[in-house]
Amino acid sequence: MDQDLEDLRDLARTFCEKEIKPNIESYIANKQVDRDLWTKAGELGLLCLSVPEEYGGGGGTFAHEAVLIEEQARVGDSSWGAPLHSGIVAHYLVAYGTEEQKQEWLPKMASGEVVAAVAMTEPGTGSDLQSITTKAIRDGDDYVVNGAKTFITNGNQADMVLVAVKTDPEEKGAGISLVIVPTDTPGFRRGRVLNKIGMKGQDTCELFFDDVRIPATNLLGTTEGEGFVQLMLQLPQERLIVALGCVAAMEFAYEETISYVHTRTAFGRPVFGFQNTKFTMAEVATEARVARSFIDECIELHIKGELDIPTVAMAKYWCSERAMKVVDKCVQMHGGYGYMEEYPIARAFTDLRVQQIYAGTTEIMKEIISRSLPVPA
Amino acid sequence: MDQDLEDLRDLARTFCEKEIKPNIESYIANKQVDRDLWTKAGELGLLCLSVPEEYGGGGGTFAHEAVLIEEQARVGDSSWGAPLHSGIVAHYLVAYGTEEQKQEWLPKMASGEVVAAVAMTEPGTGSDLQSITTKAIRDGDDYVVNGAKTFITNGNQADMVLVAVKTDPEEKGAGISLVIVPTDTPGFRRGRVLNKIGMKGQDTCELFFDDVRIPATNLLGTTEGEGFVQLMLQLPQERLIVALGCVAAMEFAYEETISYVHTRTAFGRPVFGFQNTKFTMAEVATEARVARSFIDECIELHIKGELDIPTVAMAKYWCSERAMKVVDKCVQMHGGYGYMEEYPIARAFTDLRVQQIYAGTTEIMKEIISRSLPVPA
Amino acid sequence: MDQDLEDLRDLARTFCEKEIKPNIESYIANKQVDRDLWTKAGELGLLCLSVPEEYGGGGGTFAHEAVLIEEQARVGDSSWGAPLHSGIVAHYLVAYGTEEQKQEWLPKMASGEVVAAVAMTEPGTGSDLQSITTKAIRDGDDYVVNGAKTFITNGNQADMVLVAVKTDPEEKGAGISLVIVPTDTPGFRRGRVLNKIGMKGQDTCELFFDDVRIPATNLLGTTEGEGFVQLMLQLPQERLIVALGCVAAMEFAYEETISYVHTRTAFGRPVFGFQNTKFTMAEVATEARVARSFIDECIELHIKGELDIPTVAMAKYWCSERAMKVVDKCVQMHGGYGYMEEYPIARAFTDLRVQQIYAGTTEIMKEIISRSLPVPA
Amino acid sequence: MDQDLEDLRDLARTFCEKEIKPNIESYIANKQVDRDLWTKAGELGLLCLSVPEEYGGGGGTFAHEAVLIEEQARVGDSSWGAPLHSGIVAHYLVAYGTEEQKQEWLPKMASGEVVAAVAMTEPGTGSDLQSITTKAIRDGDDYVVNGAKTFITNGNQADMVLVAVKTDPEEKGAGISLVIVPTDTPGFRRGRVLNKIGMKGQDTCELFFDDVRIPATNLLGTTEGEGFVQLMLQLPQERLIVALGCVAAMEFAYEETISYVHTRTAFGRPVFGFQNTKFTMAEVATEARVARSFIDECIELHIKGELDIPTVAMAKYWCSERAMKVVDKCVQMHGGYGYMEEYPIARAFTDLRVQQIYAGTTEIMKEIISRSLPVPA
Repeated sequence: MDQDLEDLRDLARTFCEKEIKPNIESYIANKQVDRDLWTKAGELGLLCLSVPEEYGGGGGTFAHEAVLIEEQARVGDSSWGAPLHSGIVAHYLVAYGTEEQKQEWLPKMASGEVVAAVAMTEPGTGSDLQSITTKAIRDGDDYVVNGAKTFITNGNQADMVLVAVKTDPEEKGAGISLVIVPTDTPGFRRGRVLNKIGMKGQDTCELFFDDVRIPATNLLGTTEGEGFVQLMLQLPQERLIVALGCVAAMEFAYEETISYVHTRTAFGRPVFGFQNTKFTMAEVATEARVARSFIDECIELHIKGELDIPTVAMAKYWCSERAMKVVDKCVQMHGGYGYMEEYPIARAFTDLRVQQIYAGTTEIMKEIISRSLPVPA
Repeated sequence: MDQDLEDLRDLARTFCEKEIKPNIESYIANKQVDRDLWTKAGELGLLCLSVPEEYGGGGGTFAHEAVLIEEQARVGDSSWGAPLHSGIVAHYLVAYGTEEQKQEWLPKMASGEVVAAVAMTEPGTGSDLQSITTKAIRDGDDYVVNGAKTFITNGNQADMVLVAVKTDPEEKGAGISLVIVPTDTPGFRRGRVLNKIGMKGQDTCELFFDDVRIPATNLLGTTEGEGFVQLMLQLPQERLIVALGCVAAMEFAYEETISYVHTRTAFGRPVFGFQNTKFTMAEVATEARVARSFIDECIELHIKGELDIPTVAMAKYWCSERAMKVVDKCVQMHGGYGYMEEYPIARAFTDLRVQQIYAGTTEIMKEIISRSLPVPA
Repeated sequence: MDQDLEDLRDLARTFCEKEIKPNIESYIANKQVDRDLWTKAGELGLLCLSVPEEYGGGGGTFAHEAVLIEEQARVGDSSWGAPLHSGIVAHYLVAYGTEEQKQEWLPKMASGEVVAAVAMTEPGTGSDLQSITTKAIRDGDDYVVNGAKTFITNGNQADMVLVAVKTDPEEKGAGISLVIVPTDTPGFRRGRVLNKIGMKGQDTCELFFDDVRIPATNLLGTTEGEGFVQLMLQLPQERLIVALGCVAAMEFAYEETISYVHTRTAFGRPVFGFQNTKFTMAEVATEARVARSFIDECIELHIKGELDIPTVAMAKYWCSERAMKVVDKCVQMHGGYGYMEEYPIARAFTDLRVQQIYAGTTEIMKEIISRSLPVPA
Repeated sequence: MDQDLEDLRDLARTFCEKEIKPNIESYIANKQVDRDLWTKAGELGLLCLSVPEEYGGGGGTFAHEAVLIEEQARVGDSSWGAPLHSGIVAHYLVAYGTEEQKQEWLPKMASGEVVAAVAMTEPGTGSDLQSITTKAIRDGDDYVVNGAKTFITNGNQADMVLVAVKTDPEEKGAGISLVIVPTDTPGFRRGRVLNKIGMKGQDTCELFFDDVRIPATNLLGTTEGEGFVQLMLQLPQERLIVALGCVAAMEFAYEETISYVHTRTAFGRPVFGFQNTKFTMAEVATEARVARSFIDECIELHIKGELDIPTVAMAKYWCSERAMKVVDKCVQMHGGYGYMEEYPIARAFTDLRVQQIYAGTTEIMKEIISRSLPVPA
């Protein structure tokens, strides 16, 4: 298994170095990755790493997903939405999909033929999932979907979107279901790619659903009203992915900055020659080290099925907050260059700001944690 | 005088609301303001507010400059480089220029016919001004300028650039002079407008000087080697402008956010209904209030000629640092919208990050402050 | 007036240097100041500085109180409860007392013959004043007081205590009155002096009232039920005093530390020779400078009667929080000596921790501020 | 092994609950633990847990030491210097002592008959060990020790002190040796127990050596000049002990505070009912959780002999800093009671402040870390 992971790391590293790193500027200019990045990755077996082999996946564990996430971070990329595609959407299908749904979608997602997205947030809701208003109303053998979603990662490239809807609009959480919407269905429309302050190579979109008619078999699973529970059960892995990305970003920021301060001179000596720089780099290295310790424990627990929701909320909130502070220090160490978009540290700074917001804000995480604290006897 | 300032504020507010606010998106798209913004402002007397009337200026004090800076911040604009043009470049001329230089440049700067820039930083120097390598070598009645500058605000629109050069390359600080370079001089070339993570409507450029021949009378003042002292004496006002901009940005961020949290609902009530939001807004309001108290005292001291270099360094470092923290909190209060470029709070976040870096980094400010602390008896 | 304040400062400085500074260790050992410190101060006219002269006071303003508070802080003393006695209790009498009450108590408070305290907090309440349960029930021409108070500054030395009671226990705020309890009244009893982690020279006590019978004329003012409003109106000055004390403590901490780091050597050079020390001292100096700017504005507003409740809440919360951070840094600069009680910086650290708690916690201050923020149109 | 640790934990927990917890107030009053606490612990086998059995120790690993440290923290005690005695001094003997030295001292240390201390710091040195001036000059078969030490834990009760001396005063680090000084040797004198702001039950002392004559065989090991290396090699375990104590203190602070906020009411509901409290407790729980993850990894590495010096410096600096912040928040949650010495949380606050200072200050830790950061190719 360890050898397996090592081999995967070599493969992923080479892929990220060769296929992604040289193209980051171009992804940013296009507000999305090249479509064939997905199929190239699929050919190499880098998609759906932890999906069972019978559905075309890698048959691995979250440890395999983690390797690719880390290697993508190592080249400073935030454009490619593979962690969402493989680590999140695919797992909804694995966990709740019918055999037909798995057979239909997973092999194509593993090959890169299909790019997947998941659509939860709506313009008026934010973190309050129970209040969504997009609905899928049963009409004969179909559902008719109406509504709008926003902040959807992979939204512009997605061939299939897993959409959180109300199948019973009278209900709150109990009325929520997930439905599979192929993006070539009439009535489906993409809004513009949103202009974010960071993650500029990622095609975050608004999506609109106007009388989108899908077969009733596109309900994820077999029973209406299970969507909220499904979302709650999958959110931990999504949050763990965010947390891991933040830790990897800290490590990336450290590497970028330690190089910079040794290379760059000021007042006749390397920037690292100043005690303030030394102390700052010691702080950065320490924060990254501590975060690594914690995230590795979380990953280990997750693979064993023992990572509980409050602990992953801790990881999501804490790693995203500390990463921001760390990268902020690294920007400062770069001086004016830290403010230039072409410098990876500048992009890391703007990329990171959203980590405290999406997949459940820090405030939501603290709510979750606080509710889990046992009341003393 | 107070009435005078009130009138100016009305004028400036209307100007910023009508001429700037609707065009910010367009400035950002173009990476610079419309050229005629300068002349419109000039017509209204909004340029060179504190330049003597005899040179076409407003005849005011720094209080007048402050009014315009604040009003520009009130509409969330960081594109227009007027504070630099009027508050910094013009004052080099006022303070050190020969009568001919003043007559030649100030009236045109006041009318907006000429846009001005000042070029200190070089690709290899950063905050270490004494190490610049751009040189102006006397050749008969001319100087021949060679070298490169970077991070130059107004760089793309500037008709005239005040350039820090070595007239004696053997010397360090003592070899520095300032020279006036009209940008239509042969050999002068602008690099691309830099892609910054924020302040995207501002035309920050690299500038190149290849055998740029200017008359010797373009030396600012009459004596070579005074540039370093001139820079040191003008930097306080530049830093005060930065500090004031940061305080105004905090106030702007507060206003944007208090509106948002009262309007936006989550979980069935206004976001402001949550204690965490209330406390955060209390913190934001407090920080802005404290900073306002300090900056107003600094401005008052400056107008009286009593603002010393270490105190302005305190203002520059402290206001830029606190503003970043405040705006970061405000972004968080906006949730996902805080990450969207079209939201002013998102732009404020990225605009602010450079404030701790340019016009002397926080590290340089701390050096300056620490050197000024009296050694106890 | 300015000369008046200058003279007062000289007097106060000499008094604090001669009468207080040499005795701080002894105050701490005794858990209270020497009783005659009060009369010595009274003789010099240092008590009740802002009480009208007709009642034996100094006839000054809050500016005079501020001078003594600052000078006391300059010698690092937190033992002497004069700011409470003069700046708070006396002003309840001045503002709400009947002519007889003023005549009876103020001259003796000004001379130091009477030491005064004010008792609000109860073991079960904390910041929630409306829930107090100590009551004063009218019985003929008397009130009979029953209940308990805690955390009472000057509790052990007080000759008179202004006690917040319920004259109508059925009511919340509307049932609160203030009554004057001479401490030689039967049924009044002092608990032990509390062992606090700091402010160890101050006689903070529990007080018990068991059928304490006082004449009805000891009701502060003439109408029952006005106590809550009286408290609300006087709390701003109390909080301003706390905030000012915190700023003065920052300045004291700076002075102590700048001396230490210049005197003390490490690894062969003065501690100040390290960049980390320099930067830390620059931060300390800056924080103290900013806080001074703000507190001076608050004092000026207060003297003009224009300091509103939310602004003083900002001052109380912000100055106490920043002071703690500043003093924490100063402790660190002292190394092991910063942890030794005999070092003033160590005492400053423990003294300061309570400033975020008493006179309304930081949480209460944020509530007050947040409620005052205008709802945008 | 795991069962072994579980049994030890039960034993240690019972011991701390029964023998330590009820006596903490008394230790503080006496500025030291009762002398028989040592022998009681020795009888139960709780001293020298990781010293080989052949020398009377428990034959365990650092995991065993960790159990006792954690259980001591669980009752909020900082008085008993057992971690130093068992975890530090004993290990100098185990690692460098001659067989005779081990036989002479270790069994008595394990039984509690001998209390041990180690004396490094001097009034004039602080963290700069190479500059110590206490010397041990060879005179025939003896050494004659002269000098003074300060901040010595267990200083008042110690029967034996391991003293860092210069056997060659001309040298810096290379002149340092460690010598064993029994405290009944003529010329040895204890100064007063120092009054610290926290850890008040611990007998921290100054020690004086005036012509203290010890046999040459009291040199630790067999060769002069190895003291500096010995110190460097043992400091990691000392720092790991400090870091672990800090993590355990965070956990203790969390437990104390979660109880308090559920029990205590304010404004008619439990303090935990406020969102600010909930979020604060979520932060506290998270910080403690992350720190636990890191320290457990460090302990595991240490037991495997793989914990390097920079990583332990990270643990020492980071855990002590975060613990202070966490406990500060917990104090605030306690309101006024958080400032009362009888409340464990108040003691935790003052106890913790020294953790960033002793066993190498945070500044020294950052130096160590920064020197270890690899220079990029």
